[in-house]
Amino acid sequence: MPAPQNFLQYCDDNALNFVKRLANGVHIKSVSGDPTLRNDVFKMTDFLEGELQGVGCTVTRKPLGEQIIDGKPSGLYLPDVLFASIGNDSTKKTILIYGHYDVQPAAKEDGWKTDDPFVLDYNAQNPGELIGRGSTDDKGPVIGWINVLEAHKKLNLPLPVNLKFCFEGMEESGSEGLDDLIKNEATSGTFFRNVDAVCITDSYWLNTRTPVLTYGLRGIIYYNLTISGLAFDLHSGAFGGMVHEPLTDLFAIMSNLVAPDGTILIPGVNELVPAPTPDEIKLYEDMDYSMQDFKNSVGDESAGDMSVNAVTQNTVSLLLKRMRFPSLSLHGIIGASSGVESKTVIPAEVTGKFSLRLVQDQTPANVDPLVQDYVCKLHKSLNTGNTYRLTNVGDGLPWLEDYHHWNYEAAEKATIAIYNKKPDYNREGGSIPIALTFSDQIGKNVLLLPMGRGDDGEHSVNEKIDFANYIGGTKLFGAYLYEIADLASK
Amino acid sequence: MPAPQNFLQYCDDNALNFVKRLANGVHIKSVSGDPTLRNDVFKMTDFLEGELQGVGCTVTRKPLGEQIIDGKPSGLYLPDVLFASIGNDSTKKTILIYGHYDVQPAAKEDGWKTDDPFVLDYNAQNPGELIGRGSTDDKGPVIGWINVLEAHKKLNLPLPVNLKFCFEGMEESGSEGLDDLIKNEATSGTFFRNVDAVCITDSYWLNTRTPVLTYGLRGIIYYNLTISGLAFDLHSGAFGGMVHEPLTDLFAIMSNLVAPDGTILIPGVNELVPAPTPDEIKLYEDMDYSMQDFKNSVGDESAGDMSVNAVTQNTVSLLLKRMRFPSLSLHGIIGASSGVESKTVIPAEVTGKFSLRLVQDQTPANVDPLVQDYVCKLHKSLNTGNTYRLTNVGDGLPWLEDYHHWNYEAAEKATIAIYNKKPDYNREGGSIPIALTFSDQIGKNVLLLPMGRGDDGEHSVNEKIDFANYIGGTKLFGAYLYEIADLASK
Repeated sequence: MPAPQNFLQYCDDNALNFVKRLANGVHIKSVSGDPTLRNDVFKMTDFLEGELQGVGCTVTRKPLGEQIIDGKPSGLYLPDVLFASIGNDSTKKTILIYGHYDVQPAAKEDGWKTDDPFVLDYNAQNPGELIGRGSTDDKGPVIGWINVLEAHKKLNLPLPVNLKFCFEGMEESGSEGLDDLIKNEATSGTFFRNVDAVCITDSYWLNTRTPVLTYGLRGIIYYNLTISGLAFDLHSGAFGGMVHEPLTDLFAIMSNLVAPDGTILIPGVNELVPAPTPDEIKLYEDMDYSMQDFKNSVGDESAGDMSVNAVTQNTVSLLLKRMRFPSLSLHGIIGASSGVESKTVIPAEVTGKFSLRLVQDQTPANVDPLVQDYVCKLHKSLNTGNTYRLTNVGDGLPWLEDYHHWNYEAAEKATIAIYNKKPDYNREGGSIPIALTFSDQIGKNVLLLPMGRGDDGEHSVNEKIDFANYIGGTKLFGAYLYEIADLASK
Repeated sequence: MPAPQNFLQYCDDNALNFVKRLANGVHIKSVSGDPTLRNDVFKMTDFLEGELQGVGCTVTRKPLGEQIIDGKPSGLYLPDVLFASIGNDSTKKTILIYGHYDVQPAAKEDGWKTDDPFVLDYNAQNPGELIGRGSTDDKGPVIGWINVLEAHKKLNLPLPVNLKFCFEGMEESGSEGLDDLIKNEATSGTFFRNVDAVCITDSYWLNTRTPVLTYGLRGIIYYNLTISGLAFDLHSGAFGGMVHEPLTDLFAIMSNLVAPDGTILIPGVNELVPAPTPDEIKLYEDMDYSMQDFKNSVGDESAGDMSVNAVTQNTVSLLLKRMRFPSLSLHGIIGASSGVESKTVIPAEVTGKFSLRLVQDQTPANVDPLVQDYVCKLHKSLNTGNTYRLTNVGDGLPWLEDYHHWNYEAAEKATIAIYNKKPDYNREGGSIPIALTFSDQIGKNVLLLPMGRGDDGEHSVNEKIDFANYIGGTKLFGAYLYEIADLASK
């Protein structure tokens, strides 16, 4: 049972109304990272609650209490999480949808080409790009779901599945409070009880052409490596040559963590990762990705041929390195001279920052001892009087989903139906912790189903969603539900 | 002809008046680095001019024009340099004295144990330490010279030499304008015409016990090494493993410049330095320096045994490394993440900062090609797509004086006369560019004759000069002039 024609037709006929709904959402400055705009975030909660109720949902606001700043309650309240549901037919599948209604900061002065980042900019006659903060991250997808429900209400069409929505307002600020709420609800609440699968609509295509379904995310361990030796900073004129300089030790150790070609030099870390199966390799071979896509993402033509900056010119290897293999990046140093002035200081204590991106079967638990052991050996080999301290300052497991599941199958069929193109199956290099939380707490299959394209510029100036993706994505979301019902009936 | 007894006696009898003169000087907040205190620097110029005239000097104020800030005149005037002279007897030697009357910033909140850094703190009954900003750097020495002249005026003693003074007010802010003034005066002026030797009184003993005469200073080249590859910063989640990261290249190159034990790894750089002669080694063997002195200068007992931070436990080797050999220090990175937050950035362009301290026969001109060549080879060996740029952002020649000269002989005799101790002959690791300027422009022997001790804490909180050194130094300065006259008469 593919999506009925009248639903798809409704989306086309009402496209400009859908754009206006998005414009209403974009106009609310729900910047979660700016305490002075917290009231606007709550206005967005109200707006969304009203929209959900307007299309037939039962909505519960879940308060998260006061925001903790510098370790103590700040008097500033966290925006409510919206739990909404529609449909309660035990013969149908129940799908949980996640999205967020807060946005990144934005100011005209940052370089927006439109008059106001919070006024959705589009040409009503030819709405190619819909430019505005939150258009793609993540108000477009969230409001896309409202559009789907409106169409069904207006057409008096029954929904093919039961739907539950979890929309939060702190995603751009670390999703404070959400994990606890979900854990609590999963153990002692009822909202997640009948959920059969989860669909997260907060991701993007890899390029501008081909839809993707995302089934994996890398994990991370972030380290601080502190080298101490002196009680205070010294002058390099007076002491250079006399003392074991902590910064020299730090460079010696950090330069031995990763080779210039990106190879991780920590023994045992790469060995934890199983070689890709032929089946997996095929996924990467099928992926629509070219060196031009690489070049577009790391520079522009004016900067010269950026493909020299790829560690390999083989796109399959390159994608494997992005998604399927771990990586180690050096990020910087705390405590050394970082300004443009020519400071002749020997810093007394310096802290190097680096992180590893983890993939299956790596975990922070099995990788950390290898890093600790190796850094200990490197430090010992320096034979200086400086001491070191290596601290894991934050970690997250990699997430990997079984994409041979009806949840993905339905999404693939829906994608082919709407875009006439088989989606690429990909993993992402970065982390979306909520995917892991849902996997762990609800124990059901989780899918990342994007609406926008790889060049939407989420978090950047001139964030946009293409009109084609906004309307296409709305249709896709609806079609996905019908394909789920269709598969369930077989 | 050692210093006459009545001069020495006058210094003891008038010690508290000398302290009060210093207190008057300290009370003027002549912080050259703080534009809001520029008027106070000019007040100090006036004060010093008055004092010099009061003890019989002819004073000329040399204006330096407007201060250049960010490449253009700031409307802020540079403090005048004071040229003062007393005596014009062609049968006597003429000695040029250099000092400065500006000071470093100071605020009670920085941790001063006294009530006000600009109120000289001492116990009139038992004036052990005279605590206050500028007490040792460099108002103590400058006012010490006034004391010498006051004694001679009051005692109606003829000075044994002709004296010229060059006192500047921008030393703590890069001596802006001074070099040009001296070059100009040396080529077309008359002030330096009859100078026979130069004495700089703006340095310190190596420890708290033994006077030193300083005859050498290391030079410097300061480098910025920029690695570029990406057009903008990337997210390590999305791109870690795919790209040649500029920071990885920077760590690889900089870790190959210097070994953890301080050995410079740039081929040819160490080879430019001749081995110390037996005569020279003896100077270092004679130097009063212990591992305890080292420990005191890099930490306190609470930090554990800091001697492990010395590259050697042999004090002769340690002093050679400080004064007689070059060194290379890494200082930090511009453009990498330097805050405490765990930023997962791959910086697009990073600039490493490092400097070499140079000794004879090294010069920026003969060292730079070696560094350029080596870094070029290291960069090539990385074989990444990143480019590099190595820039000398500032350099200075090492300075080395002939200490077998009557200028040093006189200072040694005076030191023995006043402190009953042969001074150590040392070099300093840092640079005092004025020494080189005087050597080059005036072409006469230059001596660094300190008043204060190694623990005076110039530039730090609780800067002090010991009463014993302030009065002893005043006597030493006078005695030095008598010894010059004595040697000249032989």
